[in-house]
Amino acid sequence: MNRSTINLQIISVAILMLASCSNRDTRQIVHGDAAEQVYVPPGEYDEFYAFLSGGYSGQVTVYGIPSGRMFKEIPVFSQYPENGYGYSEETKPMFNTSYGFVPWDDSHHIELSQQNGEFDGRWLFVNGNNTPRIARVDLTTFETVEILEIPDVAGLHCAPFITENSEYLVSGTRFSVPIPQKDVPIESFKENFKGLINYVSVDPEHGHMELAFQIEMPGFNYDLARNGKGPSHGWSFLTSYNSEQAHTLLEVNASQMDKDLMAIINWKKAEECLAAGKFTERTTSYYHNLHDEASGIVKSTELTTTKILDPKECPDLVYFIPVPKSPHGADVDPTGEYLVGNGKLSADMSVYSFSKMMKAIEEKNFDGEFDGIPIISYEAGLHGIVQKPGLGPLHTEFDGRGNAYTTFFISSEVVKWNVETKEILDRHPVYYSPGHLTIPGGETRKPNGKYLLAMNKITKDRFLPTGPEMMHSAQLFDISGDKMKMLLDFPTKSEPHYAQIIAADMVMPNSKKFYPIEENTHPHVTLGEGNSRVERDGDEVHVYMTAMRSHLAPDNIEGLKVGDKVFFHVTNMEQDWDMPHGFAMQGARNAELLVMPGQTRTLLWEPQKVSVFAFYCTDFCSALHQEMSGYARVSAQGSDVPLKWGLNEELRESQQAANAFYDQAKTNAGK
Amino acid sequence: MNRSTINLQIISVAILMLASCSNRDTRQIVHGDAAEQVYVPPGEYDEFYAFLSGGYSGQVTVYGIPSGRMFKEIPVFSQYPENGYGYSEETKPMFNTSYGFVPWDDSHHIELSQQNGEFDGRWLFVNGNNTPRIARVDLTTFETVEILEIPDVAGLHCAPFITENSEYLVSGTRFSVPIPQKDVPIESFKENFKGLINYVSVDPEHGHMELAFQIEMPGFNYDLARNGKGPSHGWSFLTSYNSEQAHTLLEVNASQMDKDLMAIINWKKAEECLAAGKFTERTTSYYHNLHDEASGIVKSTELTTTKILDPKECPDLVYFIPVPKSPHGADVDPTGEYLVGNGKLSADMSVYSFSKMMKAIEEKNFDGEFDGIPIISYEAGLHGIVQKPGLGPLHTEFDGRGNAYTTFFISSEVVKWNVETKEILDRHPVYYSPGHLTIPGGETRKPNGKYLLAMNKITKDRFLPTGPEMMHSAQLFDISGDKMKMLLDFPTKSEPHYAQIIAADMVMPNSKKFYPIEENTHPHVTLGEGNSRVERDGDEVHVYMTAMRSHLAPDNIEGLKVGDKVFFHVTNMEQDWDMPHGFAMQGARNAELLVMPGQTRTLLWEPQKVSVFAFYCTDFCSALHQEMSGYARVSAQGSDVPLKWGLNEELRESQQAANAFYDQAKTNAGK
Repeated sequence: MNRSTINLQIISVAILMLASCSNRDTRQIVHGDAAEQVYVPPGEYDEFYAFLSGGYSGQVTVYGIPSGRMFKEIPVFSQYPENGYGYSEETKPMFNTSYGFVPWDDSHHIELSQQNGEFDGRWLFVNGNNTPRIARVDLTTFETVEILEIPDVAGLHCAPFITENSEYLVSGTRFSVPIPQKDVPIESFKENFKGLINYVSVDPEHGHMELAFQIEMPGFNYDLARNGKGPSHGWSFLTSYNSEQAHTLLEVNASQMDKDLMAIINWKKAEECLAAGKFTERTTSYYHNLHDEASGIVKSTELTTTKILDPKECPDLVYFIPVPKSPHGADVDPTGEYLVGNGKLSADMSVYSFSKMMKAIEEKNFDGEFDGIPIISYEAGLHGIVQKPGLGPLHTEFDGRGNAYTTFFISSEVVKWNVETKEILDRHPVYYSPGHLTIPGGETRKPNGKYLLAMNKITKDRFLPTGPEMMHSAQLFDISGDKMKMLLDFPTKSEPHYAQIIAADMVMPNSKKFYPIEENTHPHVTLGEGNSRVERDGDEVHVYMTAMRSHLAPDNIEGLKVGDKVFFHVTNMEQDWDMPHGFAMQGARNAELLVMPGQTRTLLWEPQKVSVFAFYCTDFCSALHQEMSGYARVSAQGSDVPLKWGLNEELRESQQAANAFYDQAKTNAGK
Repeated sequence: MNRSTINLQIISVAILMLASCSNRDTRQIVHGDAAEQVYVPPGEYDEFYAFLSGGYSGQVTVYGIPSGRMFKEIPVFSQYPENGYGYSEETKPMFNTSYGFVPWDDSHHIELSQQNGEFDGRWLFVNGNNTPRIARVDLTTFETVEILEIPDVAGLHCAPFITENSEYLVSGTRFSVPIPQKDVPIESFKENFKGLINYVSVDPEHGHMELAFQIEMPGFNYDLARNGKGPSHGWSFLTSYNSEQAHTLLEVNASQMDKDLMAIINWKKAEECLAAGKFTERTTSYYHNLHDEASGIVKSTELTTTKILDPKECPDLVYFIPVPKSPHGADVDPTGEYLVGNGKLSADMSVYSFSKMMKAIEEKNFDGEFDGIPIISYEAGLHGIVQKPGLGPLHTEFDGRGNAYTTFFISSEVVKWNVETKEILDRHPVYYSPGHLTIPGGETRKPNGKYLLAMNKITKDRFLPTGPEMMHSAQLFDISGDKMKMLLDFPTKSEPHYAQIIAADMVMPNSKKFYPIEENTHPHVTLGEGNSRVERDGDEVHVYMTAMRSHLAPDNIEGLKVGDKVFFHVTNMEQDWDMPHGFAMQGARNAELLVMPGQTRTLLWEPQKVSVFAFYCTDFCSALHQEMSGYARVSAQGSDVPLKWGLNEELRESQQAANAFYDQAKTNAGK
């Protein structure tokens, strides 16, 4: 029996165990007060925001905890017809990459900004796995405001792990590739394929991201990471699999060795090497797309250089330590001393000691090297082993009381254990096959050990069925006592991989209600209905339109021609919370615009035939919403129908009276 | 003070009342058992499916009642990067229209299929408001399987109202337009703009839709409708606004008259006229897009003729009756005798009697005519008036115990009243400004009067804030007793307009778990990993790929060239519930594919540069999901790198052993 056959047996056992899940009695005995614990009565608020990555939706979803109610889907990496993100002229540039306009990605890991190892509630970062990118969401507006492409990597799964003062977002390539890219046989993997570990700096005032440097690494599959905190601040820890450097059938070929390698990186040392000029500047191509809040416009810039550090040229920058077997998560405990390596095919879990690893480095207690990078002796760096914890450990978080909680994919459970003693304290089944779990602040120096959320990969029989395609399930636990208590089962949109949970009072007070119209710097803003107009410039037509309860101005437009490019620049004149207006044009090969109060958004319409087209507001905004509509007349190319627009002239005076009434109404309402 | 000034005052009062909402104490005293009533313990199921239209998302969402948990978003009228709907080659044709590829719409009204005036749980129909279309969702797969465009109308808001044996889906134009379309001044509205009321037949066996006939109507804005049941079976009732026939500033100009007109249509008479050849056939263009379940491919067909009925040529086909003032909903009670006209600017509500209207028609008790269509005397058709019910009545449903429930947009409340006596029995505030409400079966002959769901237009302070853009709120009531009890507040995705709620046991037993692979007739299906291959045909390359835990085959591809059109035909070989695989290619200007078990989906990739590209499975499918990946080598145009593909050859044998293990595993699990 050869090694690969043994591996196949392991896989088959896993499959068998998975299949057997469906025979299990899934009814849970839930504690009597679970209903009360998760119920948020009408008019009251959830205690926490949970931000879940959208996985193959490419977005981020926002849920309330403990209620499990979804409050928002924030479009990030994928087109979102619902509000025109990626369809409007202002937001299309957010999808620019060195590959062109890429309308989709696969978002995996949420990282909230931190100061002193605690969440500060300012920004949310999330990675695009497929076409390597990192995005920033502003937590005052809940909008994606920046996307930075990461060059010369493939599969940015291992991202965007944040340092404890938001100095850097650390990421690693999941799929090594030729660097720079070239036309080489895939079987020349070991010779030509390399990995990169990337450090993106975060501007402390505005949050802007910049690719600070990249470290050239052996061609492994870098998978997950965490950064140090407290005593381990200044270091990063990245798991990898496929130290076999296989390029086909990884299921078998990347599961050959008993241990893979975790990279241990001293980024303070990287800063020294950069300062000393010990780097090479490489020419490449990657895009930086930045949203300007005042104008609402995304500006896209191609960047062409990156700084590369070579571990050989910068000694003490990178070490490895072995981790059994095909590790997935790398998790640092709140003290910053302990580091858990979750080997997904390992029968136990290795817990490392940061101080022991430092001592081993100092004493050069190495067990060989790989491509010149010293491998710290496994035993020398080990704090200890958690014996027989479960099957398929993936991820660990912490409660701030000395306990760790680990998900086990194959045995479908969450296991609680003591970090210091490695003793198992409790285990609870989940339905089924959990990936990540999250605890509020569970990766920071100050976890709030009240709740734990397990995000499960297999849903099957948890909810009313919805055909072959189902949402994934999350399960909420109360972990405030000695034993975990399951409270709630709720479906989650698309496939959340990781999530972070933050106290509502860290975010809620800063949430914007609308955009002040006096700050609107959009070049095509219409300030006041009296300025609404239509301008022609060759075959480009610009409609300067306002939206206000309950009409669009202008609402009758004539003189458009087949073949024109008509830009509708719609300014929402409202200055009130929850008063968006929408704009849609019949037959447009485009999505709608959803325009927030004070904002300007632009829809490009290229009418294809002679017709009178209807347009209207798509958001039910008032009792007379159904009346908020208009017509655009499109004539043949070469027609002499003059450009003309307006509201009904004889009613303009009454309209002004209506505006006065409305202003008065706002005054009366104390706005 | 002229009429338009009076109207503006009404509007201003409405705005003031709306603004004052925010000063209200929103805390509700909820009955002590509300938490228990809405809590569905882990492992148990909700009692009802609620299908909510997605409004400006263009989709349909599925929630559980009473828990308020979202189980699925079904993509219908808009591109959905999450699973590749509207991006994959198979599904792109679903968006074909006479205007070209339209990737978005605005879905408003859910209609579940009926037999004998009760839901039968087979199909769901929903309208596209912007580019007029009707879609059908199959309730065994929860997938959109058909979209039919409706020609020569604009704004298909008034749709797709179903008759009690699913004979027809009735719809009306919201915005009248020139018919046929032509280049005319918008101010020639009264002369040139007409309405159409459309009847789409539903094939009783397969659900296929066909445009049976259209009735040419005066140029009003047809808004909402219901069909008769029991004694009124064979009749349709459609509200309209803008009987003023204004074309600009409808907010004022379409609110001039005290009463608008409801159309009363005898569709049995229409069938007689059609049979007698009393119609004209008009040449036009509209698309019919139909999904074939066996192949998974949508086929798109352009249709070019439509049958038009003219009320003048088909006497007794259409009548009008006046409704005060700017009516919105038209709702028929379970007995089929009573019809509620909800005049959104009216201070009271008119309830009509079907038998009295029939008597008035018989006795020719008319109050003039419009364009040759007789107007039934308001008083003659009236059952009675609900006095001072609230402000801004929009929609009414029924509990099957003789009671009606109406939403009031301006006064933000739901009011319960007795249909026979018109007496008001209860009122309950909602937060804020409800549009539709729905009761399980509340539009059918057999309502289940246990719950009522109000769908609100203003969310404001109901949930943790998410910046300027928020989801809408729904509020669930227990209506089983004399007084309505508010149970739960939950956010709903995008803007649900209408919803229908159906008992879970009508749908759940028929829900498909996967597609039998032996029934897959896709022309590019790969049946068995041994058949995976790559074929070149000029600059088109077809990759016949299989996906199975935990590898893609082939996973190494060489010989692709810049400028090729590479079609990845991915067949998911699994035959197990909840085992989708995804497929994504780095840098593709496309979304991912999410492939259900037994299904084939195709991604078109046009590589733009010389590189080795990574691809992978996007759905975390097994413990070795991270290993489910591969590489595609792209060479320069004109390169002589030969086409080559495969898994690692020396491991093919072991792989066959793995397949045998897997088959055994499935057998063991009783599949």
